[in-house]
Order: sequence, then structure tokens, then C-alpha cells
Amino acid sequence: MKNIRIVLVNTSHPGNIGAAARAMKTMGLERLVLVAPKDFPSEEATARATGASDILEQAIVAPNLRMAIQDCEWVLGTSGRNRYLQRSIVSPRECGQWIADHNDAEIAILFGNERNGLSNEELAFCQSQIVIPTAPQFSSLNLAAAVQIICYEIFSSSLTEISCQPDSLVPSLVKVEQLEQLYDHLQRVMIETHFLNPEQPKQLMPKLKRFFSRAQLEEDELNIFRGFLTAVEKHFK
Amino acid sequence: MKNIRIVLVNTSHPGNIGAAARAMKTMGLERLVLVAPKDFPSEEATARATGASDILEQAIVAPNLRMAIQDCEWVLGTSGRNRYLQRSIVSPRECGQWIADHNDAEIAILFGNERNGLSNEELAFCQSQIVIPTAPQFSSLNLAAAVQIICYEIFSSSLTEISCQPDSLVPSLVKVEQLEQLYDHLQRVMIETHFLNPEQPKQLMPKLKRFFSRAQLEEDELNIFRGFLTAVEKHFK
Repeated sequence: MKNIRIVLVNTSHPGNIGAAARAMKTMGLERLVLVAPKDFPSEEATARATGASDILEQAIVAPNLRMAIQDCEWVLGTSGRNRYLQRSIVSPRECGQWIADHNDAEIAILFGNERNGLSNEELAFCQSQIVIPTAPQFSSLNLAAAVQIICYEIFSSSLTEISCQPDSLVPSLVKVEQLEQLYDHLQRVMIETHFLNPEQPKQLMPKLKRFFSRAQLEEDELNIFRGFLTAVEKHFK
Repeated sequence: MKNIRIVLVNTSHPGNIGAAARAMKTMGLERLVLVAPKDFPSEEATARATGASDILEQAIVAPNLRMAIQDCEWVLGTSGRNRYLQRSIVSPRECGQWIADHNDAEIAILFGNERNGLSNEELAFCQSQIVIPTAPQFSSLNLAAAVQIICYEIFSSSLTEISCQPDSLVPSLVKVEQLEQLYDHLQRVMIETHFLNPEQPKQLMPKLKRFFSRAQLEEDELNIFRGFLTAVEKHFK
């Protein structure tokens, strides 16, 4: 992801710069470019960056946007508004997928000033505009929150397996035979305690079987149930 | 999305509460529950919420987690760590898609304290654990940033119709309070039958809780277990 730079244009609040650096680093992005920031370096930026102050130390400060992106092959601007010069609009997810497919291109992603976003002049540098979906009633995303969402989508797309369910974590499930023994045991104790009437069994056992098979019982859980039933039986004697 | 509550547990910094409220509102979520916040209400929270101070004004403050979620049917905990009692793990995207398909269930999404995340005890309330993918070198997401990502995925999924499973197949699940009553009942009978030694409880109850949350217990199944436990108790007398 070394081909991607996050470019913050005319940021007013240094806290947002720090929070953006932290957001980037959690998603494996390192290159931060600041175009004419109002207040940087700043203690507040460093405080909000917490463990990501290295991103701030390596950040490049550029006097204008053109200087910040002149060697880029692809420039995307994040913007909530529909501008009158409509350009290609992509979602954060499409942006992430596109970037994952182009890890050899120099890419810049621009974020505008907190109050006004990217100007038409700044958007003119962009091949595409990223629009983050927001509630129609309230679209005022915090700057660092917008950076977080975009970086999250880029990082997610870079993972070959987005699903976080490592198979190795699935414990050994019990065999059918063990399940049947549990059912027999359960039925025995249920009859002993007069909870189950063998003359009128209703749907008790079928319902319990359905429950236990759905639950994918693990071996040590099965042992707990068996142990408990044995304790109940002993207690009667 | 009125069926979804965001629950912040033991939040230390009021600024994070305000930023979380803003993150929620941008994604159309309104219900914020604060469990024993360190400092709330607070000027800093209101300042960071900007246009989302209505979310703070309507926020519910609960003395403990159980009170905050007792009427919920589905509880998801956001956690970066792999716990030794592994429960079902979902990605933010899977979580968003699942929620989009279950807009009639009362759902709580928990976020732990800034420093420590959710404790094992808090995670024991959760049917599933949401793990936000992060860079292995630096996984320290800001609390409000984590809220932003989850809310973004929920909102994005609400925009598209991606169905994972037909709603008709999902029966009404039991509420947290009912589950807790089952656990209390089970524990009582296990102690009575000397299966569980309160001096040395080991991992019995945590393991059983994990099993029952994973199993997505339905109401009539719960009633079977409760009825059986009552029958065992009666039999002793």
C-alpha cells in the first residue's frame, strides 16, 4: 500500500490531522501529505495520533495541491456534494477494489477542509470523486472519520480473505454417536424427574435434538451436559 | 434502524462519546446507550458531537451492561482480541448484512472501554463478536472510529438489498433477560446437585453461556430447559 498517499487539503484543526494519521495506520497506510495545514506540527495532532506519531513525523507538507500530487497517476477526491461539473462517482468500496487491482499506480486520495470540503478547483485535479454514503438528514462526517472509512475499504479490499473466520479455530465437533448418548441420557433423567411422560412424549425430544444439532455442540460442552445429568441422577439416590 | 442501539461501555473520554454520536448520526443511527460513563454529560462531548447533540440528549445512561441490554434479542460485541473462549466471529460487513436482514429484532452493538475493550464478562453477553480488520502492526482503532466503521457498514447494507437468509426461517429469539434467568436457574440446580462447586466454579458457566448464545435459543426451547430444571428441583424436595 506504499503507492497510496492520503492528502489533507487546508486542514484547520490539528486534532483531525492526528486522528487521520491514526486512522491510516490502523489500516496499513503510511503516506500522509498535508497541503497548507493551518497548524502543523502541533501537540494536539501528536496527542490524537497516539501510537501513529511516526506517520506525522514522516508527513510531507506541501504549499499547494498541485505540488502534493504532481507525480500521481490517479487522483481521487472525497466529497459529499454533487458538484455542477459532475465527474465519475465511485463508492468507497469501489474505490478500495479499484486500488487493490492497481497496486503499481501512484494514487492520491484527497480530503478537503473541514468546513468547505474540496473546492471545484481542487476537484478539477481528480479523475474520480468518492462519495461516502451518509444519511440524507445529516451528512456531516468528521474529517478523520471520512479518512477512516476510505482507509478501511482500501485495507479490506487488500485482504484476500475478508472473512475473519479462520477454520483452525473451529473446535472438534462431537460425533453422532455421542449426541445419541446425550439424548438417551437426557430422556432418562427427564422421565425420572417426571418432566417427560413416556406415554405422552409430545415433541420434547425432537425439539431438543433439533436444538442440539443446530448448536454444533463441542466435545467439552457435551461433557458438561453429561456430567450435570449424572450429578442429577446421583442426587436422587 | 430504530431497532439498533449502540452501547458504549465504561467510556473514559467524553470527546469519544460526542464523536461516536456524530458517527452514528451520519449513518442514520439514533439510539445511544452509555453504561457507567466516566464523564457525562460533558461540554467536550457536546462540542465533538457538533450537529449530533440531539443523539447525546436522547442517550440513555445505564448503571450496568445488563440493564442496558436486557430487552435485546441480539447482542454483538466489538473486539479486536482473540479470546480463549472463542465465540462466533463476524466481520463488520457480515454484521451489517445480517442486521439489514433482521430489522425487526432488538439489536445491541457493544463497544468497550478505550484502554481495555470489552472484558470477558462483557463478551459473555454477546452471541457474536465483531472483529474489524486492522493492520497487524497497529490495531489501535479510536473508539469513535470503530463506531464509524460499524455504523457505515450497517448503513451501507441498508441501502442495498443483500439477503443472507430468508427472514421467514428465523424464529423469534429470546431476550437477554430470559437467557440470564436460564443461566441463574441452571447455576442454582448445578450447585444443588453438587455438580458446580461455587468455591471452584472453573469455566462451567462461561462455557455454557457461550454455548447457549451460539445456539440462538428459541423461546419454546428455552421453556423446555426451564421446565426440566424446575422438575429436577421439585424432585429433590
